Amino acid sequence: MQLRMDAGALEVFLQEEFGQVAADFAVDRVDAGGVVLRLKVAERHLRPGGTVSGPNIFALADVAMYLAILSRIGPVALAVTTNCSIDFMRKPAMGCDLLGEARILKLGRSLAVGDVLVFSEGAADPVARAGLTYSIPPVRTSA
Amino acid sequence: MQLRMDAGALEVFLQEEFGQVAADFAVDRVDAGGVVLRLKVAERHLRPGGTVSGPNIFALADVAMYLAILSRIGPVALAVTTNCSIDFMRKPAMGCDLLGEARILKLGRSLAVGDVLVFSEGAADPVARAGLTYSIPPVRTSA
Amino acid sequence: MQLRMDAGALEVFLQEEFGQVAADFAVDRVDAGGVVLRLKVAERHLRPGGTVSGPNIFALADVAMYLAILSRIGPVALAVTTNCSIDFMRKPAMGCDLLGEARILKLGRSLAVGDVLVFSEGAADPVARAGLTYSIPPVRTSA
Amino acid sequence: MQLRMDAGALEVFLQEEFGQVAADFAVDRVDAGGVVLRLKVAERHLRPGGTVSGPNIFALADVAMYLAILSRIGPVALAVTTNCSIDFMRKPAMGCDLLGEARILKLGRSLAVGDVLVFSEGAADPVARAGLTYSIPPVRTSA
Repeated sequence: MQLRMDAGALEVFLQEEFGQVAADFAVDRVDAGGVVLRLKVAERHLRPGGTVSGPNIFALADVAMYLAILSRIGPVALAVTTNCSIDFMRKPAMGCDLLGEARILKLGRSLAVGDVLVFSEGAADPVARAGLTYSIPPVRTSA
Repeated sequence: MQLRMDAGALEVFLQEEFGQVAADFAVDRVDAGGVVLRLKVAERHLRPGGTVSGPNIFALADVAMYLAILSRIGPVALAVTTNCSIDFMRKPAMGCDLLGEARILKLGRSLAVGDVLVFSEGAADPVARAGLTYSIPPVRTSA
Repeated sequence: MQLRMDAGALEVFLQEEFGQVAADFAVDRVDAGGVVLRLKVAERHLRPGGTVSGPNIFALADVAMYLAILSRIGPVALAVTTNCSIDFMRKPAMGCDLLGEARILKLGRSLAVGDVLVFSEGAADPVARAGLTYSIPPVRTSA
Repeated sequence: MQLRMDAGALEVFLQEEFGQVAADFAVDRVDAGGVVLRLKVAERHLRPGGTVSGPNIFALADVAMYLAILSRIGPVALAVTTNCSIDFMRKPAMGCDLLGEARILKLGRSLAVGDVLVFSEGAADPVARAGLTYSIPPVRTSA
């Protein structure tokens, strides 16, 4: 499937539409397989003990899937998460970024479904796994 | 079932163990049925457009269930979320707090399961619904 | 909200559209709150050891939610399950039916969301809890 | 990681412990990556219209993950599903078997987590995706 937004375009979109969180993320890779999104871990993302908090891991999975969808359909600010089922499996490693690897499993007219594996950078075993569904608004305004 | 922590004790616990987010929440009610937790919505919780972001709704559900468990078993800082399946159903109303109503459905030796309904304060229809599972460490140190 | 199908109408619909499984179920109650569906437990539903198998508990939750939706929108054979997140919490009691209590949390134009608690008949603690999403076809043909 | 049961051993186990459903399944592959399990689709698995019913797709995902765990830890009949979140994405193709590809993401002392993709045989796009958690009994009796 053809890509309609590359890493640069996705980061610009994030900056323009979600300025509050855009600084948290960097798009490491976009291709036909999906998106790899980086959470640039900082003090504000940590729980006591020094590991990234659950809501920040959730946010990484959510934004990674959102950008994977946009990379296929173009900038549609109105797509919304309708469901996320997330398994937290291991503590994130301390002092390193998290990577969310999103792949799209279905891209229908009104629903998109995919999943995300979250890793501490350089680690082989995933921190978390999420399945997500997005609702896509009926009229798509392509960029 | 007997309660081992009331609203005041839960808020103190949150303050001591999760100081970074304690200011976001207030415990509105604790009883045998569960916990009602309030997200004191502020600018930092909002997406563009003025509604509370998904990760903050997730955080409300997660903390509400955590406190509902603690109210039953006492302060166990090590209980961890292992799974959360959340449905986002409606946009939160603007300019008002969110309430997370958590109830415990199972409190086993190693796993606790429950669900949370999230409402905009004063609204009849829920914003979100979450089912959560927590893993409880084998040796419980009661306070 | 007004009901468009009562217990009898739902059972007739099940018989006509899902004849293969209709004999497994009975509609115990339909009201504004939702549907209570009974799995008439028989030998064919059991795992070794004598408890109802996971797929049959899943089926009970799935059909209960389906009928709860139909009770509101009328007989729409094409509504399909898009997501189910189910927690298995306790073994079903032996030698008794299971009851699935379905409530609808959102009934939108294209998606319906609800949850189901499954109990062994007469027991206070739930066997399972499920959150389900159904996709509703764009043009609704009312009966 | 070393495998403790191969395809033949898994099928024998299924036959001995779950005789009622063993005839539904065949183990197509077992390796370090996981298990591929085949649902040998027959009349009894179908909904009206000729496609495999949701509960049977659920059963395929559930058994595939169960066998993937057993292939690693040996025959432990007591492992139980605690959570399954399943997305139904496409209708199964008519007249062909379904394949469930299970991979294990975490194999802890008390919890195992993995996911399953379900395909119609020969098709590129998945019918369903499931994330599953199993609880493993504290004392493992190795074969």
